[in-house]
Amino acid sequence: MSAPPAYTAEPPGDLAARRDRVLSASYRLFYSDPVHLVRGEGVWLYDADNRRYLDAYNNVPSVGHGNPRVVEAMTQQARRLNAHTRYLSDELVAYAERLLSFFDPSLDRVILTCTGSEANDLAYRMARVFTGGTGAIVTANAYHGVTGEIAAISPSLSLDIASSARAVPAPDPRLGDEAGAQFARDVRAAAEDLIASGHRPAMLLLDTVLSSDGIRPDPIGMFTPAVEAIRELGGLYVADEVQAGFGRLGAGMWGFDRHGLVPDLVTLGKPMGNGYPLAGIVTRAEIASIFGRRDRYFNTFGGTSVAAAVGSAVLDEIVENGLIASADAVGRQLRTRLRDLAARHPMVGEVRGAGLFVGVDIVDGNGALDRQRAAAVVDGLRESGVLISAAGPEGATLKIRPPLVFGTEHAELLLDHLGPVLTALEHGCDADSGHR
Amino acid sequence: MSAPPAYTAEPPGDLAARRDRVLSASYRLFYSDPVHLVRGEGVWLYDADNRRYLDAYNNVPSVGHGNPRVVEAMTQQARRLNAHTRYLSDELVAYAERLLSFFDPSLDRVILTCTGSEANDLAYRMARVFTGGTGAIVTANAYHGVTGEIAAISPSLSLDIASSARAVPAPDPRLGDEAGAQFARDVRAAAEDLIASGHRPAMLLLDTVLSSDGIRPDPIGMFTPAVEAIRELGGLYVADEVQAGFGRLGAGMWGFDRHGLVPDLVTLGKPMGNGYPLAGIVTRAEIASIFGRRDRYFNTFGGTSVAAAVGSAVLDEIVENGLIASADAVGRQLRTRLRDLAARHPMVGEVRGAGLFVGVDIVDGNGALDRQRAAAVVDGLRESGVLISAAGPEGATLKIRPPLVFGTEHAELLLDHLGPVLTALEHGCDADSGHR
Repeated sequence: MSAPPAYTAEPPGDLAARRDRVLSASYRLFYSDPVHLVRGEGVWLYDADNRRYLDAYNNVPSVGHGNPRVVEAMTQQARRLNAHTRYLSDELVAYAERLLSFFDPSLDRVILTCTGSEANDLAYRMARVFTGGTGAIVTANAYHGVTGEIAAISPSLSLDIASSARAVPAPDPRLGDEAGAQFARDVRAAAEDLIASGHRPAMLLLDTVLSSDGIRPDPIGMFTPAVEAIRELGGLYVADEVQAGFGRLGAGMWGFDRHGLVPDLVTLGKPMGNGYPLAGIVTRAEIASIFGRRDRYFNTFGGTSVAAAVGSAVLDEIVENGLIASADAVGRQLRTRLRDLAARHPMVGEVRGAGLFVGVDIVDGNGALDRQRAAAVVDGLRESGVLISAAGPEGATLKIRPPLVFGTEHAELLLDHLGPVLTALEHGCDADSGHR
Repeated sequence: MSAPPAYTAEPPGDLAARRDRVLSASYRLFYSDPVHLVRGEGVWLYDADNRRYLDAYNNVPSVGHGNPRVVEAMTQQARRLNAHTRYLSDELVAYAERLLSFFDPSLDRVILTCTGSEANDLAYRMARVFTGGTGAIVTANAYHGVTGEIAAISPSLSLDIASSARAVPAPDPRLGDEAGAQFARDVRAAAEDLIASGHRPAMLLLDTVLSSDGIRPDPIGMFTPAVEAIRELGGLYVADEVQAGFGRLGAGMWGFDRHGLVPDLVTLGKPMGNGYPLAGIVTRAEIASIFGRRDRYFNTFGGTSVAAAVGSAVLDEIVENGLIASADAVGRQLRTRLRDLAARHPMVGEVRGAGLFVGVDIVDGNGALDRQRAAAVVDGLRESGVLISAAGPEGATLKIRPPLVFGTEHAELLLDHLGPVLTALEHGCDADSGHR
């Protein structure tokens, strides 16, 4: 029996070393010199030395770090009530009604979970029950989450892919209008291969902005032929909006809106609670009903009163502060200026993006994607006080994905720092100190 | 593209009907006349008519509904910072250190998730990577969560059980000291059957208090021979402490402490954040390291600064308010008085439990478990303002599992209401109105 332990609030020792002694080896830190955060506000993060960082990476605190309205909604509701979903509570119903008002009327039922992984895991279960199939089709470097079943259909994790899944190349923007037709052919071939191996397709699961496939928002309409193909073959189209959703792409609330699609199932996550664990599924009553007749699904912390109150406050902030239009405008400015930089810096390749989800390829002297240089840009920006990351199959695409409250002045600041970092790397020396 | 919708804060109509129109059919409400909650405080819940209910059911708000210290810790941290785990932050490291101080020193690594389902799902992944096996053994009516893989090893959900899993009868308390030996024989036979079908066992996963198998905390030591057997056969012993943990059983912090066991992996959840979505795994560095070398695991909302601050406040409340000793004392009083009731009411069968996890069998005239009568008791108590539930394979065991701040006066109140409900049912009439 464990005795109540003596607890020292501040054990001695370096924080990173202490962390390694208590956390699993599966944890990873960003940067070779990790950032030790103590405070956040809006688009700003502060480290233990009170150094300020411009956050151009984190999409979860979408309406800003420490957003006062969201914190207040959470606090007031937590003081009042935090009921689970087996009791009636106003907050859950009001939130579900409001959330659905942002969707096509055919998408009329909600299930709330705590994480995007849980949402994708449940979507796969629901698609199996509804279609009677077991197969899943994903893109070649997709990431959809960390449950056992979802990790096994997330090729970017480099695990063995499930025998019931097939990965197909993501639509290739260089093919232009042909991209969609090619993608549909690949999806159809994968579905036929699944059927041949005894797995009728249950779903085509697509991250609408193809984030881990290198950020590919265009061409508009590129998913349509594949969506038609999967439906024809008896599977559902599941839109993973965990990355693209809640206005991030600056064109409507959802990534599939940009592509003129209406999915069968939509999975939501990351910015939905601005950091409070809130995620979920929106689908048609027909699918929910066939699933619900066979399976109970109770998620202890999913859709509690506090989760719902937080979710509502996030929607308020997005709508009332015009964050979708702002993401569109700031994103356009950012991409234009990045393309200006590309003209001056040969290591900057293609600039892609929609709204405030921007990818910038970093290339070597031959124009090939260059992971090491991309990492050097990410590190250089961290040194100069700007947080971004790199993504894509080659890890060579800068991922610029700030909170949606990121304004034109913040975009300018990012660019002011990026120029010197690129120049310094091109001259083989450090931007700040002149040596590396 | 969805236009920002016109939003009416209070659409007209009955709340339950509105709920059915927006939530998936997989949602279930307690009671034929559901409780519409608007407020909670300590062990009390209030409905929309300001009617007060004694909460003798909810184990999540373990340190009390709306616990001020927990709400304050959450609020202050959310205002300051809510960093994820790829940045260094004090809160996560301090919480992990403190959490580990409640475990045997061999259990020295933490991974935080958002839900108990995620924790069990990850434990299964880790057990597979560590052992090289794929098989899981669970008890006959076990419930471990709702991800695809965990639902498939949760027989209580009545889905098809995974081909890599076997369910064995839970230890039978009526066998007394023989219960453990019998359980070990069953586990060994299941493991051998798994091996014969090509699935070497990865884990024996046991809810320490066997909640959905009817609440069976005794006899002490009943798991030991089976744990020895699974280890001998190359599998791990995974303790699911989602129900039993954090002092609920009134004897040490963890259910396995009562049984004198040290698990290989421990999964935590429900009361860990008093309603904030916080769950996780504690294991040995060796297991974490072998898993971590192969697999990354990043949980966006798991172990953020706010989750860690909330978790620390919950531990403070348990320790400083002596809630484990209180659970022990109040639980003993409750069981003694329930046994007094059993002597007077033939429909009350065996009373089992440890701390504030109490099961009461409801039986028919022949002493057989009676699901309908148990449901009538649960409904009768709801009518008289006390919330409990029923559990077990037959659904005939009253589940009394209140917040740990439930005191002797609350136990007396519950009993004051239970007696008349039993009397009324025995006389075939309603306790309040004299007719049904």
